[in-house]
Order: sequence, then structure tokens, then C-alpha cells
Amino acid sequence: MTYVASHTLAAGQAAEIKLKETVASYMSASLITLRRGMKAGDARAHMLGQLRDDDVPAQIFVTDDSGFLHGRLSLKTLLTERNDARPVCELMQPIDYSVEPGQLRRDVAPELQEKSPDTVPVVRGGKLAGALYEREIASLIRDEETDDAQRQGASLPLDTPYLATSPWALWKKRLPWLLLLFAAEAYTSTILQVFEEQLEAVIALAFFIPLLIGTGGNSGTQITSTLVRAMAVGEVGLRNLGAVLRKEVTTSVMIALAIGLVGLFRAWMLGVGNEVALVVCLTLVAITVWSAIVSSIIPMVLKKMRIDPAVVSAPFIATFIDGTGLVIYFNIAKLVIADLA
Amino acid sequence: MTYVASHTLAAGQAAEIKLKETVASYMSASLITLRRGMKAGDARAHMLGQLRDDDVPAQIFVTDDSGFLHGRLSLKTLLTERNDARPVCELMQPIDYSVEPGQLRRDVAPELQEKSPDTVPVVRGGKLAGALYEREIASLIRDEETDDAQRQGASLPLDTPYLATSPWALWKKRLPWLLLLFAAEAYTSTILQVFEEQLEAVIALAFFIPLLIGTGGNSGTQITSTLVRAMAVGEVGLRNLGAVLRKEVTTSVMIALAIGLVGLFRAWMLGVGNEVALVVCLTLVAITVWSAIVSSIIPMVLKKMRIDPAVVSAPFIATFIDGTGLVIYFNIAKLVIADLA
Repeated sequence: MTYVASHTLAAGQAAEIKLKETVASYMSASLITLRRGMKAGDARAHMLGQLRDDDVPAQIFVTDDSGFLHGRLSLKTLLTERNDARPVCELMQPIDYSVEPGQLRRDVAPELQEKSPDTVPVVRGGKLAGALYEREIASLIRDEETDDAQRQGASLPLDTPYLATSPWALWKKRLPWLLLLFAAEAYTSTILQVFEEQLEAVIALAFFIPLLIGTGGNSGTQITSTLVRAMAVGEVGLRNLGAVLRKEVTTSVMIALAIGLVGLFRAWMLGVGNEVALVVCLTLVAITVWSAIVSSIIPMVLKKMRIDPAVVSAPFIATFIDGTGLVIYFNIAKLVIADLA
Repeated sequence: MTYVASHTLAAGQAAEIKLKETVASYMSASLITLRRGMKAGDARAHMLGQLRDDDVPAQIFVTDDSGFLHGRLSLKTLLTERNDARPVCELMQPIDYSVEPGQLRRDVAPELQEKSPDTVPVVRGGKLAGALYEREIASLIRDEETDDAQRQGASLPLDTPYLATSPWALWKKRLPWLLLLFAAEAYTSTILQVFEEQLEAVIALAFFIPLLIGTGGNSGTQITSTLVRAMAVGEVGLRNLGAVLRKEVTTSVMIALAIGLVGLFRAWMLGVGNEVALVVCLTLVAITVWSAIVSSIIPMVLKKMRIDPAVVSAPFIATFIDGTGLVIYFNIAKLVIADLA
């Protein structure tokens, strides 16, 4: 009795679907499969005969003659089954999780992190197209995290490992985001020009600009980086928006009180007068809470729009807070300082 | 003939060495081992009898009666060996990579990412203490990356998953870094106070403060986030300092020229005069290159000091660049603007 049960995609087919950043570019297309009509003893011999390297799959997929996926058989079951005549289809278990070759890496990575399966079949139209074993899953997740880390640094992801990337290629990956952020940040100059009169009247207000907008950016970055990571490992999704917002606003109020007090003390140290000190304190409180709201919502909104939330980098948040923070600062100043009213 | 070959640490022993963030807290202490004197047939039966769940190890460790590790045997070799009487020690391969239970997670993670082994023995004083299988390796790397992501966001790593962390716990993890950064950033107020005279003479200089220091922070963040990630996956180490510095300085000069030109145009748009526009342009060039040097060196220096380079967060770099950037800005202003000399 002979079987031609091993399921190997032709090289041409594999290349055709090998698109960047999809499941297809990670899956192993050459894999050991069993036919559902096989008997346990033959299946065991077939499996052992097909082993090429030291990687032994913990799960072996079971198909029919047309390549449709019917189930999976654990290596343990196959090796320990005592009745060699028992058919594979009696031993196999149903498929509870599969992916498609065309799915984007960033869409499957959170699921893979959350479920941490040891083997995932890649299925197209019900037929087995390949599999992700632990090595392929680890490689997919590692690449996705490298991309995320680079996006979190406000750079486009590199196509090659860092050391192999030329300065010219780095320039092309970094300049677009840098120019975009520059354009967004350029409005801060316009805002400051609008408040030129107030600045000239109370020059001490200028002293605190970097401190106030910097602190707003920092507290926002703390939130987005934690949140983006929790979303990447599948812990947080859109369903958690309410819980995240409550948690972050509560935390930010407590942080705002601490930072506001320290800021009051710092302004007093510089001897800029009680009014400016009060403005600095109130602005710190307002910016910290504002930053928390923005930083909790934006990653969720992007996810909803099917944009990778990892683009919400520290520079992105800092730029957003810089402009809005200045508006908050000068409006509080106009309210508090009698001369500016 | 009986063997007591399975090597299981008592629960008490496992707890004793279960320290946070060490290899010991990830390793599987209950594992199937073979004795070197076993015959292949007996070893196979022993292995199959010990299988508890669907996880079948691809490599099985071989010890002597005292628990000293002598080698490893691939499952494939064990299953396909036809001569049942052959001793295990003739089939086994030497151990080429092992870790110790007390090693820190952050020290082994880059090696594990780089080598991507499927099984790693954990050895203490030559004796087998446990093993990291693919699942344990993935879990160790995932936790280390979550910590890194939080450090990169200028927060202390959380002890619990994000959704399970209370606002009070978040407050305690975030406030220390926020206060530290606030203290470091507070010097910007002192610097601006020192240059009060120049600011009052040319108030337009104030308009560009957020834009200039923001851009310096952004370009530095692009570098540190890429570099910290490359160090975390083991691609870049201290040995690459020269190559990294050359690559980053070259890239930053090209970026500085582009950003400097755009900045010149932006200052001209605001109608602040040729002198201020030139100061803005020159400062952008200087800050971008300065930021690149700082951002390339600091992660390496921290690594050398055995501090996790992931603490070089965007807020860390932004804070560092804010103060030094202002000094660069006002010194260029004093050189270029005749009235300030």
C-alpha cells in the first residue's frame, strides 16, 4: 500500500503568494500531512519516513485526497496509539484555530500572542496551504515587534536589518515622519505668535514652555506605549475603551496633583511671582489630564480605522500635546494674571 | 530493568529559585530526561510513557545518575533508530548552548532572539536544573518585550497585565520617571531665564522653541528606538559602536540639511526677519546632528554599564535634547544676530 500524503506546495505557488507582511511569507509550505483514511501504524511509519530535520511537529494535519483540511493529530496520540489498525480519522481532533495566507501579519500577531498555539494551519478555501509552527510563529511575532518598535520611534519600518541598512535608506525611512511632525509642530510658532503680546508683557511665561509641554508629552507617552503594547499582545481591544479611559483618567488626576504641586514649588524657586506660579501649577494639572484623555483615545480610534496603533509614537503624542498645551497655557494665563486680561 | 530517569524538581526547590525576571521563573522543571546508559528501545518506551500532554520535546536531555548533563538526543533520532540495543550515549549530541537558572531575563533574551533555539537546557554547576522549550522561550521573550515597551514609554514595568493594574499601581509605576524627567526638564526654565535679555530683545526667538527642541527630540527618538530594538534582538552590541556612530552621523547630516531648509522656509513664512530665520535654520542643523550623536552613544554606554538600554525612552532623549538644544539655539542667536552680541 502506498500513500502520497505529504503535502508540498510547488515552489512557484509559494512564490506567487509570498507577499510582504502576510501570513504566506512566514508559513512553512513543505509539511508532513496524513490522509484521513490512513491506519495508525502506516501513519506512524509515514510520518517517521518524512522527517527531514530535527524539527518534529507536535501536531500533524489530516487532509483528504483533494487537500481539504479535516483535523489534526497530536504526535503523542500517534506515537502512543497501540492499535495499529485504527484509522487516523478516529484519532484526530477538530481544527479550532486557523489563519489564511493573505491575512496581514499585524492582524494575526495579537491573536498568536494571546493564544500562543504551537501549530496553526494556514487554510485557503478549506484546503491546507501551509502551517505556522513555533519557529514560524516566533519569527512572525519578532518581525511585527521590530516594526512596531520602529513605528513607535516615529520611523517607517526598515526593510532590512539595521546594520545592513545604508544611511541613504535610513534617510528615506525617517524623513517622511520627521517632516510630517515638523509640519504639525510648526503650528506652535503660529500659536506663540498669536500670544506675542502676553509673552512680551510677562516674559517669565516663556521660561516654562519646554517644561509644561514636555511633561504633557511624557505623561501621554507613558500611556500610549503601555496601551499600544497591550493591544499588540491582544490584551486590550476596542471593547475595552471605557475601562481604559476610566483607568487612565483616574490615574492622570492623581499624577496631575503630584506634578502640579512640584511645579508650583519649582516656579516659586525661580522667583517669577505668585501669579505665574499659579498658572504653571494649573497648566500642569490641565495638560496632564488632557494628555491622558488624548493618549487613551487615539490608539483606539486608529485601531478602529484599521491603522496600526503603533504609529502613535512618543513624538506623535508630544507634537499633538505641544500645540494644544500652549493654547491651554496661555488661556489659563489670561484668566489668572490680571495684567493680561 | 527499571529506570528512574525522569528528572523532576521538587516543588519546594522550584519555588526557592523562582525569582522574578530570572531564567528560573520561566524554565520547565518537570521534564523528560534519559540516562546515558539506556538502550535506544528502552529510551523510546520510557519517553513515550512519560508524555503527559501534547507537548513533545524535539530534544531530550541525557544525564548520568547524579543529574549531570551529558548531551541531547533529538526526538527524530530516537524515533528513527532501528537498532533498539544501541546505547543512548552513542546517539546523543553535545550541548552547544545552555543557560543558568540565576541569569537575568534581560541578559538571555537577546541571545535567545538571535539563536532562536527550540530547546535550551538550564544548567547549574553542570547539573540539569530544567529546560526552556519553545513555549517557555516565547513567554520569556514576550515578557521582556512588554517590559521594554513600558521602559521605552518612560514607565517602570508593570507587575501585572495592564487591564488588571489599578490606577494606584499605575501611579506608583509612572510617577518616579515623570518626576525624574520633570526635575531634568526643570533646568530648561533656568536656561531660558539666563537668556531672558536676548528673549526680550528678540521675542520672535521664543516662537521657535517648541519646534526646535521638538524636532531634536523626534530625530533622536527615531535613532534610539531602532537601536534599542536592534540591541534587544541581539543584532547590535557594544562591538558595533563605531559602525553605528558612522551610520547615524552620516544619516543625520543628510536629514539635517533637509530639515534645515524646511525650517528656513517656515521662519520666512512667519515674517520674523532674515536673521532669526537663519538662526532657526542653523539651529535645526546643529540640533539634529547633536541629537544623533547623543542618541547613538547613550544606549551603548548604558549597555556597557549593565543598565537596560530600553530606559532610553523618547521622553529621556527629548528631555536631554531640550536643555542642550536651548543652549545651542541661544548661542547661535548671539553669533548671528548683531543686536544680541
